[in-house]
Amino acid sequence: MKETDLFSSAAPMTDAAVPLGFAFAAARAGIKASGNPDFAWAVARRPAAAAALFTSNRVAAAPILVGRRHLERSRGAIRAVVVNAGNANCATGEPGLHAAQRVCAEAARILGCDAHAVIPSSTGIIGAPLPYEKLLAALPSLQDGLGSTGGHFDRMAEAIMTTDTRRKTAAASVETPRGAIRVAGMVKGAGMIFPQLTPAAGSPPHATMLGYIFTDAAIDPAGASRLLERACSTTFNRISIDGDTSTNDTLMLLASGASGVAIEADPGPEAAPLTEAFCAALRQVCLSLAKRMVADGEGAQRLVELDIRGAANDEEALRVARAIAHSPLVKTAWAGSDPNWGRLLAAAGYSGARLDPGRVSIRIGEEEICSMGMVSPRLNPEAARRVMLRQEYVVQIDLGLGEGRTQLWTCDLTEEYVRINAAYST
Amino acid sequence: MKETDLFSSAAPMTDAAVPLGFAFAAARAGIKASGNPDFAWAVARRPAAAAALFTSNRVAAAPILVGRRHLERSRGAIRAVVVNAGNANCATGEPGLHAAQRVCAEAARILGCDAHAVIPSSTGIIGAPLPYEKLLAALPSLQDGLGSTGGHFDRMAEAIMTTDTRRKTAAASVETPRGAIRVAGMVKGAGMIFPQLTPAAGSPPHATMLGYIFTDAAIDPAGASRLLERACSTTFNRISIDGDTSTNDTLMLLASGASGVAIEADPGPEAAPLTEAFCAALRQVCLSLAKRMVADGEGAQRLVELDIRGAANDEEALRVARAIAHSPLVKTAWAGSDPNWGRLLAAAGYSGARLDPGRVSIRIGEEEICSMGMVSPRLNPEAARRVMLRQEYVVQIDLGLGEGRTQLWTCDLTEEYVRINAAYST
Repeated sequence: MKETDLFSSAAPMTDAAVPLGFAFAAARAGIKASGNPDFAWAVARRPAAAAALFTSNRVAAAPILVGRRHLERSRGAIRAVVVNAGNANCATGEPGLHAAQRVCAEAARILGCDAHAVIPSSTGIIGAPLPYEKLLAALPSLQDGLGSTGGHFDRMAEAIMTTDTRRKTAAASVETPRGAIRVAGMVKGAGMIFPQLTPAAGSPPHATMLGYIFTDAAIDPAGASRLLERACSTTFNRISIDGDTSTNDTLMLLASGASGVAIEADPGPEAAPLTEAFCAALRQVCLSLAKRMVADGEGAQRLVELDIRGAANDEEALRVARAIAHSPLVKTAWAGSDPNWGRLLAAAGYSGARLDPGRVSIRIGEEEICSMGMVSPRLNPEAARRVMLRQEYVVQIDLGLGEGRTQLWTCDLTEEYVRINAAYST
Repeated sequence: MKETDLFSSAAPMTDAAVPLGFAFAAARAGIKASGNPDFAWAVARRPAAAAALFTSNRVAAAPILVGRRHLERSRGAIRAVVVNAGNANCATGEPGLHAAQRVCAEAARILGCDAHAVIPSSTGIIGAPLPYEKLLAALPSLQDGLGSTGGHFDRMAEAIMTTDTRRKTAAASVETPRGAIRVAGMVKGAGMIFPQLTPAAGSPPHATMLGYIFTDAAIDPAGASRLLERACSTTFNRISIDGDTSTNDTLMLLASGASGVAIEADPGPEAAPLTEAFCAALRQVCLSLAKRMVADGEGAQRLVELDIRGAANDEEALRVARAIAHSPLVKTAWAGSDPNWGRLLAAAGYSGARLDPGRVSIRIGEEEICSMGMVSPRLNPEAARRVMLRQEYVVQIDLGLGEGRTQLWTCDLTEEYVRINAAYST
């Protein structure tokens, strides 16, 4: 995957890359004011093993509450995910729960399965009643549209977009002695993006990212859950666009088993290489999708990888990364391609992580701009500025204290971001 | 104090409002590129009892380190504060400490006191060596300029500004049977403003606010410290412009005793009313200055008072207030005068505070926009929008859980903020 690809639509999904056992469709339900497709579903031909991570926001949207329950009741055997864009069905009370349930029930009726085998997702405005009748009315056209080509996959990825400017998909495959396993995912999200996804219950929340990863490997639901959590912890849970954790964030992994190749989450020595290869493919898809979201962040012009090292421990490295990723002064300096390392140092200083300013060094790309807490004698401001004109670069901060390390991907804060979000009306 | 005053320069300080026992002066040392006055001092005719609160940022600037030591060595008996604007003398290593010490030593020589009786402050760019020779060269003109009129006070308040658009001063007085006590303060700060001021040592950090409160009451240093902390806890430590805690934040109280009226921090029943009256005046000056900073925040068009109530406890109310004050989505909605309560609710949801969405109600000014976690049946979007076109309004969130409450003052996030900070060059 070339880095520049992150700033353009993913190449069309090829038919061969689509995991076996699934079909996809999109429709226009009339929720988006633009009239663009705004309703989609992914259907597993037979019950797929499903795992889900949901927002940790204490204000969880109706589809999150319904989805958690359905996942539990179905014991992770899922036939469909049904997604609408344009309305988050959040802060909608009992009527919102009813709306999500009605859509699941009608989808289940069409598929001839239990309502618990359908997981709902919504994204869009918070607090407006979900016009679920429009979704019910559009379900037959979702049924008619089902297909398993790359084009079907891409159309679903487009229908779930809100302020995204392009669809975001990624795919990988694993060759095994028993044949290929396919992994393919789609994601939406450009604002309210600081996913803190947790298994089922949860503690604090995020902005809306919706992500669906499909594979034709055979995995049991508990194993799928463990592998998804592991992949998420260093990808989706390590990005931030604006630091706002949404009420609707959802990440799902659905495993159809249609490839006939089984993956064990806790393999013995013999199966370990296969599990590792699968995990690598899963993480690659998750990381590509996560970085695509940041690159398509509202108003974003730069994708910045924070590489924090030398912290007392990993948790403190993460505190530094979060403080920097959420500092308006740092993010506006990036928008101005300004190697203002004082703002980086100040944010590290207030992060709560242990820090000795005299040990800190900072690099932007290959340029050292700060060493031992002072301006680097090797600072070349023009060279640093040139790095910062790239679409993607690394800011590396070494605290010089210990072995703690983390990576986090974030973006700049531009006037365009403010325009988009000051104009977006309730 | 009329609220609209917050958005204009404070009225000129009258001579009568200036606390007795102090003199002030400002000069052009040539640090600001604009050529504007950038160097000032306040001198106490006799040693004043001083208390200081400094940033909790772990990257503390040289003047903070020197100031802490001088305050300790002098046991709070201070003759002068010496302030330069345009250079923060932060991340400047040993040379930075030496520079701050040299300026204090030369000021002390002129005043005929110990160097420990002088407290330095700096604000401006981080990481550039402080050209302290320019300050040394300008000290004689600071000496010549000393005077105790309101005009002298105002000129110092102007010289310490950086991205501030207007000087910020406030004054109050307390009538006592033994005569009047005067309290007057000045402050600077428009960006890197989320003060987390702590006594001397400290834990996490802030953006640069410099604040100096003068009084002619007689208080001992320990008492001054307690009263300043109390006043700061609900004023300066309850504002945020951008959430960036500076490396240089400093708040000082200097008590000359020249009024002849003594204030006890821990009074008996007889003296209690006088202490309370003094505390009220001190808090009034601190709150006025704190709100003036937010109203003059970089690019800010609106001053928003967050009134969070009904939380499980005060600490959780503060978590909610901080999450809301630092949410780019909330702050841009304010810039667009958009009563987008979903973003408020989402931020409360991820704050970490305990919260039951079904109990939350939200008001903007006198307009109820959310009740029981859903859109209010009384919502009048146009009326809410009219409130949000005011320069100053209150956002009240009632979590409906307990007795926890806090207030915090913050501002909107505008395109102008991004322009200012993307252009500001290192």
